Amino acid sequence: MATQPATAEVRRVADLGSASVTLVANPKESAISRIDPTFWWVGMKNPKLQLLVHGPGIGSSQVSLRYEGVTLDGTQKLENPNYLLVNLTISPTAKPGKLALAFSGNKKTTYQYELRARNTDKSRVQGVTSADFIYMLMPDRFANGDPKNDVVKSTRVNHIARDSMYARHGGDLKGIENHFDYLKSLGVTAIWPTPVVENDMPKASYHGYAVTDYYAVDPRYGSNEEYAQFVQKAHQQGLKVIHDVVLNHMGSYNYLFLDQPAKDWLNQWPAFTRSNYNSQALNDPYGSQRDRDLYNKGWFDTTMPDVNQSNPLVATYLIQNFIWWVEYTGLDGYRIDTYPYSDPTFLMDWGKALLDEYPQLCMYGEAWVGSTAQQAFFARNIFQPVDGFKSNLPGVLDFQSNSAIQDALKENSNVSRLYDALQGDWMYEDATRNVVFMDNHDMSRIYSVIGEDLGRMKMGFAWLMTTRGIPNIYYGSEVLMKNFSNPDGLVREDFPGGWAADKKNYFTAAGRTGQAGDAFNYLSKLGLYRKAHPVLQTGKLMQFIPQDNVYTYFRYDEQGNTVMVMLNGNKDAKTVDGTRFAERTNGYSSGTEITSGAAVPSLKSFAIPGHTAWVVELRK
Amino acid sequence: MATQPATAEVRRVADLGSASVTLVANPKESAISRIDPTFWWVGMKNPKLQLLVHGPGIGSSQVSLRYEGVTLDGTQKLENPNYLLVNLTISPTAKPGKLALAFSGNKKTTYQYELRARNTDKSRVQGVTSADFIYMLMPDRFANGDPKNDVVKSTRVNHIARDSMYARHGGDLKGIENHFDYLKSLGVTAIWPTPVVENDMPKASYHGYAVTDYYAVDPRYGSNEEYAQFVQKAHQQGLKVIHDVVLNHMGSYNYLFLDQPAKDWLNQWPAFTRSNYNSQALNDPYGSQRDRDLYNKGWFDTTMPDVNQSNPLVATYLIQNFIWWVEYTGLDGYRIDTYPYSDPTFLMDWGKALLDEYPQLCMYGEAWVGSTAQQAFFARNIFQPVDGFKSNLPGVLDFQSNSAIQDALKENSNVSRLYDALQGDWMYEDATRNVVFMDNHDMSRIYSVIGEDLGRMKMGFAWLMTTRGIPNIYYGSEVLMKNFSNPDGLVREDFPGGWAADKKNYFTAAGRTGQAGDAFNYLSKLGLYRKAHPVLQTGKLMQFIPQDNVYTYFRYDEQGNTVMVMLNGNKDAKTVDGTRFAERTNGYSSGTEITSGAAVPSLKSFAIPGHTAWVVELRK
Repeated sequence: MATQPATAEVRRVADLGSASVTLVANPKESAISRIDPTFWWVGMKNPKLQLLVHGPGIGSSQVSLRYEGVTLDGTQKLENPNYLLVNLTISPTAKPGKLALAFSGNKKTTYQYELRARNTDKSRVQGVTSADFIYMLMPDRFANGDPKNDVVKSTRVNHIARDSMYARHGGDLKGIENHFDYLKSLGVTAIWPTPVVENDMPKASYHGYAVTDYYAVDPRYGSNEEYAQFVQKAHQQGLKVIHDVVLNHMGSYNYLFLDQPAKDWLNQWPAFTRSNYNSQALNDPYGSQRDRDLYNKGWFDTTMPDVNQSNPLVATYLIQNFIWWVEYTGLDGYRIDTYPYSDPTFLMDWGKALLDEYPQLCMYGEAWVGSTAQQAFFARNIFQPVDGFKSNLPGVLDFQSNSAIQDALKENSNVSRLYDALQGDWMYEDATRNVVFMDNHDMSRIYSVIGEDLGRMKMGFAWLMTTRGIPNIYYGSEVLMKNFSNPDGLVREDFPGGWAADKKNYFTAAGRTGQAGDAFNYLSKLGLYRKAHPVLQTGKLMQFIPQDNVYTYFRYDEQGNTVMVMLNGNKDAKTVDGTRFAERTNGYSSGTEITSGAAVPSLKSFAIPGHTAWVVELRK
Repeated sequence: MATQPATAEVRRVADLGSASVTLVANPKESAISRIDPTFWWVGMKNPKLQLLVHGPGIGSSQVSLRYEGVTLDGTQKLENPNYLLVNLTISPTAKPGKLALAFSGNKKTTYQYELRARNTDKSRVQGVTSADFIYMLMPDRFANGDPKNDVVKSTRVNHIARDSMYARHGGDLKGIENHFDYLKSLGVTAIWPTPVVENDMPKASYHGYAVTDYYAVDPRYGSNEEYAQFVQKAHQQGLKVIHDVVLNHMGSYNYLFLDQPAKDWLNQWPAFTRSNYNSQALNDPYGSQRDRDLYNKGWFDTTMPDVNQSNPLVATYLIQNFIWWVEYTGLDGYRIDTYPYSDPTFLMDWGKALLDEYPQLCMYGEAWVGSTAQQAFFARNIFQPVDGFKSNLPGVLDFQSNSAIQDALKENSNVSRLYDALQGDWMYEDATRNVVFMDNHDMSRIYSVIGEDLGRMKMGFAWLMTTRGIPNIYYGSEVLMKNFSNPDGLVREDFPGGWAADKKNYFTAAGRTGQAGDAFNYLSKLGLYRKAHPVLQTGKLMQFIPQDNVYTYFRYDEQGNTVMVMLNGNKDAKTVDGTRFAERTNGYSSGTEITSGAAVPSLKSFAIPGHTAWVVELRK
């Protein structure tokens, strides 16, 4: 196994992806270039810790230590001599401090490994629930708060270019922080940035899904310390933070790919082999092993090697890494990218390990599939195990209601799709943990999808703020940002006002001219109402089978609060017989439409205008 | 509760359906007009028997009996004085004979109730499995074997009219018997006639789904005895019989509706109230009681009162009735109409009682729903109970693969729908018990749906004969009968040759002119091949994710038999890389396309013409 500097040739191989990739290490680096996890804590529930030590030729070393409460369980060589695994047990009585790991043999050195005290701040790891309202954003594209980190010389990209949709634009953590008040004015309570970890890729690194260092924040967004502070500041402002993670693949410039610990740390193919992107291969009772392998082990893209989580060492590496991020930052939830593509057994183990350590941690996965059953298969559900797989993921991104709201808001509206989407919730253990959304960074923006119709956009907002689950808005939808996703860069444009030189500034009321302000104000009214009214967060839901393309449902609680939502998908006004809803309207006589303040004097019959949503607080 | 003759007024009420229906009995009839079950057997697994005695004023009678091994557990009055329930226990030692039931009090009479010996013929109740091939037909429209029963004077319809699509045409059991050979020449092994029980309705009685006597075969088809003989003759010919039953509703001329035992034997509404026909109301976790009641208790049609199976007495009546038909005729399976509309708890009890008595009995239900999950909800599945309901129905009519084959065969073909439909089988306990079909008596005929294209029709036949489950063809599809289902009478036309005067006779090879003969011969070849090759009946299935609108799957067994099926949904020829299928083709070198006899010299690559199905028996 040759050790050689990362050359252009290696990079080429890295781009193409191949089983014949050359394993490399830089001989100039010190005896130990890094140890993952980069540090750890005393007092974790799981006392075991497996260190991945990296350094040229370190694999042949012997290791010793003497630290009260810490025992060395042994070491393990890997195929690549530049790696050594060190297995420790940290007893509950161990104290924080520097653990001196003595390496002897060919490479003699001592590494001061840090064991920290756990942070006991009660505001950490709050979880995210249906009481929250998530704002999803791309940190490179939201706001540039710190121009000093726009270009970081140590990275592979040495410029920003806001006129290029795949270049970096300069957005960062500080930019988000600067607009906490903006988010709060919408009623937002949780922020989901696309991945903030290092993506030191030569191209399109801004999207964040090609991690090159599992233990580092991308320096263009800020430092690790700044990210931990970002979470803390968010908490102080009543905002939670969701960390977007990728288990299935890494970036081809990840050091674990450039200098692979062993070939079996990645799913290798004789030639570059793409995933079939079809999760049905996984639980098809008649499926071929080939289709299943293509799904689970095929590469997501040429620059995204597929991680082999069926290797227990890799599984441990990933589990520890994601415990590390929670413990280090106090983050509130994980959004898990391309969830079903990972090894099913690993997914169960990973989820269990995280929830064992942090029972309150929110976790929701991306399972972009075509049916409720297939989606529920990847969440906690009422199914018996299939091929030994029984998901323990609390929630999923709800692509079924997403598809439904798009169909409900299109010109040729079908609101029954919304009823159908929720009806399927009988398959979930608890569907209120699912995240509902109208669009995201991989989709055409909802405002374009529905033909740039403000009335129907408001119907979408009303649905999002009142249906079951955790509502999630994609940055800019509130000010009617638009575009179709082909190419996807078009739906990842900069938020107007996020850069000092921007002529438009949609962060301020004065800057939100025209319909953008109208849309913002409508969503803000609903978002703040929702935030103040638990009935819309955790109240029960009752829906009635749509009639005449009008969909009516209720949120209600045991304290006597009831909100009626009526969505008229028709262009024309409709008269709706209110007596159908007696189960929920009995005891009430009138109501107030909360976005307009208009009185609803009777609940016996409703004359609702075309393409309109009513959110009606009922009165006795 | 007035007793009066059935008048025009009563008939009007019966048509409209109403809670205010008048309960009637005919004072001219003898003390006991009937007892249901009409007779019973000794030696049944369940020793309990509940007799529903009907006669004017019989409710006030006392009952006594003396019969060795039979005990009277008691009697029970009903709201209507014309009924009395008599509860018996028949011990295993009881002998066949006439049980004298002595009624005393106001109405003095003795009724000789027959207890029969069970028929131990081993050919009875064979069950129907994926080894079978079902031919579905409408007995009034298939063939008229006995002109003497065309018009039965005691019924409400005194004529036949073949030129009227809703009149009776004269088809009967004898007509089916006359064509057993025809069915066998297709490879058919099971016959499913639409209901043969009495439908003495004044209009459209031919369809059979408005039962007027639970214990009688419709005399226009034959007598009860002739039906029992029909089953026996079918068995002698290697044909099984499926009995089509309706649990949800009855005909409005059923004596149990005209003279209702009690109001709570039917689901009554202040005014006629139609079902919402939406099974989703049943397991919608957010559903209203109103929508659920409309679904389960709303009437299927004005002439079809909804049976209240949540009444334990009604449940017992129905359970006994359907045990009676099995025991009386030796039938092989039940097809259950409008399955999900019935009371869920009753459905569990009914299914359990039938399977307890006849473990081998085939049962499949009609659950015409929009998703695999919803369909699997009504069959034995891998779901935890929902609201206490856990289906114990072995199989369902597979409306999902039905919709898929239609999409696969249409002009704008999408064969992936076939893959998707089967992929969802992970939700079933055993999806091979599902019945697959291309059309039925409620749908536009498949040949019309696909634009009368013989090539694509053959693809459909090939799929039907080789996919998983129990294949089922609707009468006439094999000779390209066509029409769209609006109105439905158009898809229920007479089979050409079923009537002596018919100019065309598609029952004979000579009569099947043009493409009809070509289609018949193609299906016949496949049907007979399937019948002779267990690999297509019970072999395992492996399917590959379709590529380029070509769908490929294999049936294979442990004896080394493998059949490859390839469906090209494209108009143009396609070249398919065979190496993808190595898991199933390894060990084989060539094959024979069984419908054409053409050699397939290599399995490395396939050049399949447009709109073509290949069914290839692989060779070593």
